[in-house]
Order: sequence, then structure tokens, then C-alpha cells
Amino acid sequence: MKLYGTKGAPNAERVYFFLKEKNITDLEHVFIDLFQGEHRRDDFRELSPFAQVPVLELQNGQALTESRAICRYLEGLYPDPNLMGETPSETAFIEMWDRRVEMMWLMPLAWWLRHGHPAFAALEKQIPELAPRGEKGFENFAKTLNSELKTRDFIAGDRFTIADITAFATIGFARVARWKPDQEKLPHLHAWRARMFERPCGSKS
Amino acid sequence: MKLYGTKGAPNAERVYFFLKEKNITDLEHVFIDLFQGEHRRDDFRELSPFAQVPVLELQNGQALTESRAICRYLEGLYPDPNLMGETPSETAFIEMWDRRVEMMWLMPLAWWLRHGHPAFAALEKQIPELAPRGEKGFENFAKTLNSELKTRDFIAGDRFTIADITAFATIGFARVARWKPDQEKLPHLHAWRARMFERPCGSKS
Repeated sequence: MKLYGTKGAPNAERVYFFLKEKNITDLEHVFIDLFQGEHRRDDFRELSPFAQVPVLELQNGQALTESRAICRYLEGLYPDPNLMGETPSETAFIEMWDRRVEMMWLMPLAWWLRHGHPAFAALEKQIPELAPRGEKGFENFAKTLNSELKTRDFIAGDRFTIADITAFATIGFARVARWKPDQEKLPHLHAWRARMFERPCGSKS
Repeated sequence: MKLYGTKGAPNAERVYFFLKEKNITDLEHVFIDLFQGEHRRDDFRELSPFAQVPVLELQNGQALTESRAICRYLEGLYPDPNLMGETPSETAFIEMWDRRVEMMWLMPLAWWLRHGHPAFAALEKQIPELAPRGEKGFENFAKTLNSELKTRDFIAGDRFTIADITAFATIGFARVARWKPDQEKLPHLHAWRARMFERPCGSKS
């Protein structure tokens, strides 16, 4: 199988972190340079019609996009360690937290950066009004996560799951805004982040 | 179990359609009036901290939010008919299409309506520039779906799945913009919609 990814984009990172936590090392990796527009080239669009990165090309040639769908596929193929839930209830609550992190934290951050940061002006016409709204939503949800992590060690419960991966990819992307959780104001989120750096997903390799 | 839902909101409809297709009839239903701000009341926030609707209250009192997570839970409890995939590959491609429909069709539609339609001005401060961008994205993805449905009967493949439910909830929401697929310009999407009305999810009851 071949994974088309890129550097610094949270959706590609979600899949990279998932691979590291599963210790999946037998994929072929291809790097797509978004700022050179490589994802918009015709040959790439044959694989990914909406110019999305990442893409997992299966052995039968089928192309799977959407980071969470790629993780879902890999979870089926490499079940251990489980990252997406064992029972219907656990699976559902993990999906709930994963979606909350994606929709209420990563998405506002993407608005903040894509519509407020000069580095993203080349990707689409910016709507400056969206940036402060994104920033506010992002900061609010950081406070929420900090409260949640007061009573448990991981985003979706008492063990590491894909929801932690999505949150860690979000925090990685927030570096572009020079943001990281303040140790005094967001101590539980700060401690959670430090724990992530001690895990496979936080390793440099 | 108790389902807190609302009328006309696509995320609540996704769960209602899912129930109809599974023929799940033993839930207690509670109606939350968004335009009266019932979702922002303190007693509702105890159940749904981010004021999200729908919410499924489980028998042990746990509250599950996020429409897709609710569907995931119900799929586990009521496996037949399967709507979210049997094998890792099928499950992943269904999730891919479901996410594409949600992110590339429902979300632009929500921008178009929430930021361009006077009925939504009470919900949040509108950013008028988002409305035409949402409309364009919505129209573009309608064309994409029309092309896809030229070669198959359902959104994610050759059988009905949750991706059809998300698309049908999107088309229902588009009525607010007085939009429906034009029979001449979008014949395959038009025919797909007509088929949906003949199914449980499209029944009036």
C-alpha cells in the first residue's frame, strides 16, 4: 500500500500518528507539496478527485481519502493496539470525542490560520472576519479540554485513542499560530501534551 | 433510551432517518426547539455541554452527542440492516463518502444558509462573505454527486448506506434555500432523490 501525505497538515499527521501508534512500518510513502500545488495536478487528481491529502492507495489500486476513513481501514487490518473502540458504546464515545475535537477545535483553528495568517493567503481568498471567530472558538475549546483532562488522562476516557491523535495533530498545527497550552492557565492540557511527547505519536523519528 | 432531537436540522434528521431505515421504534423522543433557545438552557447543557442536538441518553444515563456517533452506537445495537459497512474496506469507503458529503456538501450549505438567510440571523452574527462561498461549494458538489450517481445507484456504492442518509438530510435542509436537484441539469441526483422518497427514510410518518 502507498500513502500520499504531506508535512505539517493536521489531516496527514493524524494518519502518521496512527501509523506510529500501531507500529505500521510497511507502507510506501509519497510526499505531496501543497504549497507547490502538487495536490492539484492532474495525475494526483486521478487518485484524489477533490485534491485531498492524505490518500491511501490500496493494493488493488483503489484510492481511499479522508484521514479518519484511512484510520478506520488500518484499524481493521491492524487491530492491535485498538485505537477506535471495542464495544458499540466505547466506539461511539470515542467517535463523539474525536468529532468534537475535529469540529470544535481543529476546524476553528483552521479558520483562524487559513483566514488570518499570511502563509495561507496563497491557498484561497481569505475572509478576515473568520480569523478572530476561529481563534475564539479554538481558545474556548482548549479551556474545555483542560477541564475534561482534570478528571481523566486521555481525551475520550482512560486510555489512548484516535481522539488523542486528532487533538495532538491539532496542537501541532497550532504551532503555526505560535500557540501552545500555557502551563499555568491550562495545566491539565499542558500535562496531557507532555505525555503525548513520550508516546510513539510524539516521537521525532 | 431517550433521543433529544429537533425539526428541520440536518444532524437530527440523520439520526431520524437512521432509525427509520433500521425500523427502531422503541426510543422515547424529546423535541428541543432551537429557535426558542431550548438547547442553551442549563438543564439541557447538563446533558449536552456544547448545546448540541441531537443527544441520545442511554439507559445508564450517559449522554451521547454527535449524530454520527449516535448512529455508530445504534449500528452496534441493531446490526440489521447494516448501514455502515461489513468489512474494513467497505466500512472505510462508506466513511469516506459519508465524510465527503458532510464536509463538502452539508457544511457549505450550512455556511450558505447560516450566513446568508435571514431566518438564521438570530443564531449567530452572520459573515455575509461566507454565504456565496458556501453556495458555490454546495453547487459544485451537487454536480460531483450527479456524475458519481451516473454509474451507481447509491452514494457509497451499490447499496444504501449512512452516506445516502447524510446526503438526503442535506437535500432536506437545502429546501430552506428553495433548492432541489434540477431534473435536466442534475438528472442522476434528481433520480436518486426520487428513489430516497420511496424508502423508509423518505416516508412521511
